[in-house]
Amino acid sequence: MAKYSFRNDYSEGAHRQILETLLDTSLIQDEGYGEDEYCKEAISLIREKIQNPQADIHFVSGGTQANLIVISSMLKSYESIVAATTSHIFTHEAGAIEYTGHKINNVETKNGKLKVCDIQSVIDFHTDEHMVKPKAVFISNATELGTVYNKKELEELSAFCKKNKLYLYLDGARLGSALCSEYNDFSISELAKLVDVFYIGGTKNGALIGEAIVIVNEQLKENFRFHLKQKGALLAKGRILGIQFLELFKDDLFFDLAKHANLMATNLSIGIKKLEYSFLTEPASNQIFPILPNTIIEKISEKYGFYVWSKFDENNSVIRLVTSWATQEKFVNEFIEDLEILGSGK
Amino acid sequence: MAKYSFRNDYSEGAHRQILETLLDTSLIQDEGYGEDEYCKEAISLIREKIQNPQADIHFVSGGTQANLIVISSMLKSYESIVAATTSHIFTHEAGAIEYTGHKINNVETKNGKLKVCDIQSVIDFHTDEHMVKPKAVFISNATELGTVYNKKELEELSAFCKKNKLYLYLDGARLGSALCSEYNDFSISELAKLVDVFYIGGTKNGALIGEAIVIVNEQLKENFRFHLKQKGALLAKGRILGIQFLELFKDDLFFDLAKHANLMATNLSIGIKKLEYSFLTEPASNQIFPILPNTIIEKISEKYGFYVWSKFDENNSVIRLVTSWATQEKFVNEFIEDLEILGSGK
Amino acid sequence: MAKYSFRNDYSEGAHRQILETLLDTSLIQDEGYGEDEYCKEAISLIREKIQNPQADIHFVSGGTQANLIVISSMLKSYESIVAATTSHIFTHEAGAIEYTGHKINNVETKNGKLKVCDIQSVIDFHTDEHMVKPKAVFISNATELGTVYNKKELEELSAFCKKNKLYLYLDGARLGSALCSEYNDFSISELAKLVDVFYIGGTKNGALIGEAIVIVNEQLKENFRFHLKQKGALLAKGRILGIQFLELFKDDLFFDLAKHANLMATNLSIGIKKLEYSFLTEPASNQIFPILPNTIIEKISEKYGFYVWSKFDENNSVIRLVTSWATQEKFVNEFIEDLEILGSGK
Amino acid sequence: MAKYSFRNDYSEGAHRQILETLLDTSLIQDEGYGEDEYCKEAISLIREKIQNPQADIHFVSGGTQANLIVISSMLKSYESIVAATTSHIFTHEAGAIEYTGHKINNVETKNGKLKVCDIQSVIDFHTDEHMVKPKAVFISNATELGTVYNKKELEELSAFCKKNKLYLYLDGARLGSALCSEYNDFSISELAKLVDVFYIGGTKNGALIGEAIVIVNEQLKENFRFHLKQKGALLAKGRILGIQFLELFKDDLFFDLAKHANLMATNLSIGIKKLEYSFLTEPASNQIFPILPNTIIEKISEKYGFYVWSKFDENNSVIRLVTSWATQEKFVNEFIEDLEILGSGK
Repeated sequence: MAKYSFRNDYSEGAHRQILETLLDTSLIQDEGYGEDEYCKEAISLIREKIQNPQADIHFVSGGTQANLIVISSMLKSYESIVAATTSHIFTHEAGAIEYTGHKINNVETKNGKLKVCDIQSVIDFHTDEHMVKPKAVFISNATELGTVYNKKELEELSAFCKKNKLYLYLDGARLGSALCSEYNDFSISELAKLVDVFYIGGTKNGALIGEAIVIVNEQLKENFRFHLKQKGALLAKGRILGIQFLELFKDDLFFDLAKHANLMATNLSIGIKKLEYSFLTEPASNQIFPILPNTIIEKISEKYGFYVWSKFDENNSVIRLVTSWATQEKFVNEFIEDLEILGSGK
Repeated sequence: MAKYSFRNDYSEGAHRQILETLLDTSLIQDEGYGEDEYCKEAISLIREKIQNPQADIHFVSGGTQANLIVISSMLKSYESIVAATTSHIFTHEAGAIEYTGHKINNVETKNGKLKVCDIQSVIDFHTDEHMVKPKAVFISNATELGTVYNKKELEELSAFCKKNKLYLYLDGARLGSALCSEYNDFSISELAKLVDVFYIGGTKNGALIGEAIVIVNEQLKENFRFHLKQKGALLAKGRILGIQFLELFKDDLFFDLAKHANLMATNLSIGIKKLEYSFLTEPASNQIFPILPNTIIEKISEKYGFYVWSKFDENNSVIRLVTSWATQEKFVNEFIEDLEILGSGK
Repeated sequence: MAKYSFRNDYSEGAHRQILETLLDTSLIQDEGYGEDEYCKEAISLIREKIQNPQADIHFVSGGTQANLIVISSMLKSYESIVAATTSHIFTHEAGAIEYTGHKINNVETKNGKLKVCDIQSVIDFHTDEHMVKPKAVFISNATELGTVYNKKELEELSAFCKKNKLYLYLDGARLGSALCSEYNDFSISELAKLVDVFYIGGTKNGALIGEAIVIVNEQLKENFRFHLKQKGALLAKGRILGIQFLELFKDDLFFDLAKHANLMATNLSIGIKKLEYSFLTEPASNQIFPILPNTIIEKISEKYGFYVWSKFDENNSVIRLVTSWATQEKFVNEFIEDLEILGSGK
Repeated sequence: MAKYSFRNDYSEGAHRQILETLLDTSLIQDEGYGEDEYCKEAISLIREKIQNPQADIHFVSGGTQANLIVISSMLKSYESIVAATTSHIFTHEAGAIEYTGHKINNVETKNGKLKVCDIQSVIDFHTDEHMVKPKAVFISNATELGTVYNKKELEELSAFCKKNKLYLYLDGARLGSALCSEYNDFSISELAKLVDVFYIGGTKNGALIGEAIVIVNEQLKENFRFHLKQKGALLAKGRILGIQFLELFKDDLFFDLAKHANLMATNLSIGIKKLEYSFLTEPASNQIFPILPNTIIEKISEKYGFYVWSKFDENNSVIRLVTSWATQEKFVNEFIEDLEILGSGK
């Protein structure tokens, strides 16, 4: 790891403030399994932020865990969930959803975002008991391609799902970045009115571990802790999740960290655009996908870590650059400078 | 939580040394998903301790998670695992093992410890394809009743399992306490020769979270990381597990913390024995089960937290007292004093 | 198979009347997957017999299939079902229920019959989300030990289940024999009022294959055909199940066949009692469990097929004799004669 | 059902010869659960036909059941199976495969047939433990679009699978029709050398129920009966499956029936081609897919039953016509005549 890494937003540990509070509270005794005072306080805080005092909130340690528990808790055995082919659950969770017994009805999308017509076509195709029964819709914000939903898009999805009795679930692994995007036009409390369940990602936004599952739909609340326990997600020291979300939300640290990540991504995007390179998707969050000549990718990869996302054409490829709460501006600037030098053929 | 708690060994956070290292390393970039340098170094250290350089070691966040992943990875769909009726997997994991599709063949035991004859009777009963096929044996050390295995017992189980082609899996949620018990007569490296898989519990011995799964049997190693990912156990910031085990094992902190917990339990036991109370099982680790008059239990519970384990007779009940790496000697002494006063009827 | 078999009630094919109707209707075209006229008519007939025109009725091919589909359709992932240790689902279905993800809470019984106190103790033990949540009760009539429930017992179970919001499911693999038992005091329509789901066994009462699942509880009816299809139970030529149940129920063939089986068992029991042998359980249906000297068992097994059920003491064992719709009186008489001769030491 | 049906090949019961043998053997006692003499003899016969005396053969009652048992028995929990998007397991089994915990990696095909390059692309995409691991390939012959594989295609798939350590499984629900197709150029014994497992469909070729699973690969044979029992597929009266396959194979009735079905389909195809209509896929087996004007479809559907498969363009649709062992030539001729009359606008 001598190179500076733009590989992902979990290359570092946690924000100092979080770790210091873990240290400060370490010898205080409290209840186990998330029934401690820190969790309770964090839940209160989040309920306030989303303006929904009835929401059920549960903390788990990672995104795949959140997804598999939420989705399996929502569906009967023959029910399925609709998702983009590029979605995390369809391609990057080692079959975790299928392991719980459920089919994912995948649809191709242009930029990782689902549209009403995509879901309609899945519903139209599934007509009887010889096929699964689509019952939920999975979206992520930001998506795996760095794009974000705007309010109108989300409202359309929400209305469609309500009308068709489908649960709408939003994976918010990178919700901080999405909500702080320049393309975003809704608040977290508005979001909480449009979906049935969502989770607020901590791991990729400054926490050690931790995702806060927020259940808005009354029907989905019952006995959720049984699901958590059964899937091995109920931490004995649940307090460490509560403490982290308390720190993230008590003074908007959550949003501050996301803004920093976005700013670093924006600086990268502006620099890359100035060098007249284009992008797979329009930069909107902390993941950007510039298209660069293979020769340049090879050289710049000697100094920086990142993933080559896909082949673009014979001579060019798409790379993924990810910034985080901890990304240092200095290296963002250096990256652009190095790219400029490489591009000018020096 | 005004009372001092002997409820469990996860009432506090983590040992200071662990938290300080998490803080110190926080801004250093490293790989995700357990492929970082900390994890690698921790794995090396543990391999050294168990004197098995080929062992596969994986870190997960909790005991139920460890159990469900290990057990489901060992068994074909029609295979079952033999366990004590009091075992954690049979009664306290919300059906996590059954959720992975496997039956647990439970047997009654006197003190939570399985014997060869228990397993033999299960095997004798299962004769054909109309029944499940027992293929693995689950033990825990220390057991849920605070008892520990000695070397001879473990060797007998190991030999029987080998002969009958059964995998032997040891749940070490409280392995530290077991290995530091005055009744223990084997080392962790001897243990590693007698079982196919075991896990070393961190959560209940000073870590924030973390159990180290140690796979000794070559047949069980293949593609284990797929199981971890599929069950939502692969933490993006896997480094936080590596860092913790590194701290626990680099200077025997793991054993020092377990010794402290045991010492506190021994002090409690000695004090309680002096007052001429008896125990459900002979105290051997950091969980002890004294039998006290209900009137005294009621009074002492005003000042101390603990679980009432079971009814003993009309007037007496068994309580469970658990000590930990963080238990303060002062409160142990106070508990004994208070018990004496209550007993003398003052 | 030179010996005459009392091994089970599925040693022969199907009753002539059933096979002839299959032959007669064979070239008539009809809908697939159980939506044919025969199935519809059979459903009407059964609804009439049970005096419940709203009951949902589905035909499947075997008992294990019926059990796994019904039980998995009733339970959420963390819910369990209470059953006798001797029950078919607990010991003789190769873990089929656990494969669908559910724990069976087993209780010891004296004669295979569950009592209210058995279920109460399971409920009392399961207190929170660290354990499974009992949600259903499994009984069979006749039981695996040949015993049958009387009306009072069934009413008590029914009332208890209703009060505790538990589904009551009755496995009727040998329901014909139970309802025609001299110990039976309720009708099939009374039964249908006391349980949430039951199935009427065809395979062991004269059909080639076929069990009729009867769903009485409104909540359990929704989308049941999805469960059937997903578990591979929806036969393309579903008509063959409909035709069989039509024949069984249009003129009480179902009860006539059961009566014959019971009569044969009664004759066996009377003969065996006359020879002063005792029984594991009081004979009540088409399975009886006499206790015989091992020397006699060895000799009589040269001429008749049956299972040795269990050891009784050093010199005696329990055997199981099963009669069926096809059992020939001649061999029943011969068996008794042979037993008498062997007993008299000739 | 006043109309003559070309809807499917399971609209009738079973061939007379099969039913008569069921009747003739009905009172003969034999072992349960497929261990009877009929099953043994049928297995011998099939082994002879496929020229593989070591093959393991098991009879089950339907195709979805065969698929879910075979596939789940082949795969570890994180492994997946590659199949065409149009395949039965991907779209028409109500998520049966996913219910067993496995993802299906679907690929688009032109005519329902998988090619080596399709599988290669799936393998290339799946690189690590964040994704499932493709381990098996599913094909059907004939396919859901009526097409059949030729020997060269099957050899290429077989060689590719061997090289890449993938199991090759062939769903033969309509294997009779495929092997009797004019496009077929291999025998059933050659087929048995090219795949790891396949099943021979009885239900759609003259049996009441019944598919014969043939396991060729030694590694896949172990304890298969446990899988059958656990999934509810082991019929108590397994003899009824043995008897049917005995009748189908003792004098080539299986092939005779398939030839009749194919001949009827060919007659339909020739007639339809003469009327200058085209087809979605070139007719090759007992399912054909002509493209007809919507106006004509509407009219002809008054007299004949069939499925409208898909929209072709504004004015035309694809219909599916299926013939069977029982299809009457008379109605084939009438269909063509009616189509001609409708086409001529009379």
